[in-house]
Amino acid sequence: MTILSSKDNSNIKNAVKLRKSAKYRRESGLFIAEGVRICMDAMLSKACIDTFFASEKASEKYADDFLKLQKYSDKTFIVSDKIFNQMCDTESPQGFLCVIKALDKTACFDKIKTGDKFLALDNLQDPGNLGTILRTAEALNVTGIVLSADCCDIYSPKVVRGSMGAVFRLPFVVSDTISGYLNAHSELESYAAVVSASADKITTTPFVSPCIVAVGNEGNGLKEETISACKHKITIPMEGRAESLNAAVAASIIMWEMMK
Amino acid sequence: MTILSSKDNSNIKNAVKLRKSAKYRRESGLFIAEGVRICMDAMLSKACIDTFFASEKASEKYADDFLKLQKYSDKTFIVSDKIFNQMCDTESPQGFLCVIKALDKTACFDKIKTGDKFLALDNLQDPGNLGTILRTAEALNVTGIVLSADCCDIYSPKVVRGSMGAVFRLPFVVSDTISGYLNAHSELESYAAVVSASADKITTTPFVSPCIVAVGNEGNGLKEETISACKHKITIPMEGRAESLNAAVAASIIMWEMMK
Repeated sequence: MTILSSKDNSNIKNAVKLRKSAKYRRESGLFIAEGVRICMDAMLSKACIDTFFASEKASEKYADDFLKLQKYSDKTFIVSDKIFNQMCDTESPQGFLCVIKALDKTACFDKIKTGDKFLALDNLQDPGNLGTILRTAEALNVTGIVLSADCCDIYSPKVVRGSMGAVFRLPFVVSDTISGYLNAHSELESYAAVVSASADKITTTPFVSPCIVAVGNEGNGLKEETISACKHKITIPMEGRAESLNAAVAASIIMWEMMK
Repeated sequence: MTILSSKDNSNIKNAVKLRKSAKYRRESGLFIAEGVRICMDAMLSKACIDTFFASEKASEKYADDFLKLQKYSDKTFIVSDKIFNQMCDTESPQGFLCVIKALDKTACFDKIKTGDKFLALDNLQDPGNLGTILRTAEALNVTGIVLSADCCDIYSPKVVRGSMGAVFRLPFVVSDTISGYLNAHSELESYAAVVSASADKITTTPFVSPCIVAVGNEGNGLKEETISACKHKITIPMEGRAESLNAAVAASIIMWEMMK
C-alpha cells in the first residue's frame, strides 16, 4: 500500500476540510471521527465508513484493528506520521481517522409511539456539552433528540469525540426551530425546562409519554417562543446556587428524572 | 500606575509559574483565576486576592470592575496586552488574572453533624470533570468534598474555571486515601458507587445522614480498597448503555439522588 506523504493529496485535503468546516460537512453529508476507540466504535455501530486513514505507526501498533477497519471501509490509506498529525485537531493523535457518511436516523420521529421520550435542544452552543448530552441520552435510553438549526454542529469532531460514539447510534433530527417542531407535533406532551420557582418540579412531574423536554442555551436558557410552545414548564428544585448548574449536567438530571 | 511590559517581572513570572506547576501551587499555597467573571466571583466570595493583573485594554473596558478589584486586592498591576496574553492559557483572555491565597475550608470536616452529606472522589483525573463536579456539588448543596491525594489538582486553572468559582466556596479536604478517611470516620454511612447489577439502586437508597458517597476514576472506577472500606455499594440503574456515562454526569446524578 502506498504511503501518503503529501498534504496536497485530495483525500487528505478532503478530511482536513471536513474537520474544519461545518458548512462542508453539511454540503457533503460526511464527517470525521478521530481515535482508535471511536473509529472501531463507528464500525461496530455499522456506520458507513467512506475513508479510513491510519498513520504508519498506528497501522503497526494497532495491527488487528487496522485490518478489521481496512476490510470494513470503502477506501483505506496509510499516511506518514508527520502528515497524519497535521490532519488531526488533537494534540497527540492515536493514528486512526475515519471519514463517515451521515445517515438518516429519523425513522423514530416519523411515527411517534406511546412510551417515546424525546429531548429538544434549543440553541445549545458548546460542542462539549452537546457531546456529553448525547452520551447521557443514549445511556439513559432517550428515544431521540430534536436540535434547533442554531445549535452547534452535531457532526463537529468535538461532539463526535465527546459523545463516545452516541452520534453514530442515537436518532436525532434537526428542525428550524423547536417551537415549529412542537407546534407540528401536538401529540407530544411538551415540557420547557426553566429556572423558576413557580414552574413544576421535575421530581413530581409525571412526564406522560409520548413526551418531549426542551432545554435551552448555556447562557440564556430557552427562547421565549419555545417556552410558549410548550404545554408545561418544569424546573430543577435546588437549595444551593441554582444558577450554577452546567448545561450538560442540568440536561442530564432532567433526562434522568424523565427516564427513570 | 506603571505598566508592566516585560515577562521577566517577578510578579508575572510568579503568576506564570502558578499557572503551570501544581507543585509550586502546593508549596506556595497560591493559585490563579483567569477571566472577568471568575475574578469578580473570587472577590464576592471573599477569597484572599494576593495580586490582581489586568491588561491595559481590560482595565479600560471593564473600568468599574477594575477599580473594585484594585481596591480589594493586596497588589494590582496593569500589564501590556501582549504580555498579558502570554501569561494566560486561554486563547482569547478577557484581561483579568488574580493570584489567590488557598484558604483552609475544612471546618465542616472537623465535627460531622446530622444532615451532613459528603462526596468522596477517588483518583479522579480530568480537571474538566472535577470542575463540573464541584460546580454541581455547590448547586445541590453538598456539605463538602473529600479528595484522594492522587486526584488531579483542585487548584489547576481548568478546575478553577470549570467550577465557576465553587472552588472558592465549597469546603473540601485532601486525604491520602479515601479508604483511610472512611476508616477514620466510621460515624459516616458510606456508599461506594459501582457499576454492578447486584448493588443497591440509587433510586431506592435512603442515604441516611451523615453520609458520604465515593465516586472513582474515569476509566477504572473505585479502587478495591475504597469499595471494601464502604458500608454499602450503590449503582445507577439504567436500561441503556450503562458503561457510557461521563464521570461528571454519573457523579451529578448520584449527588442529585443523595441531596433531593
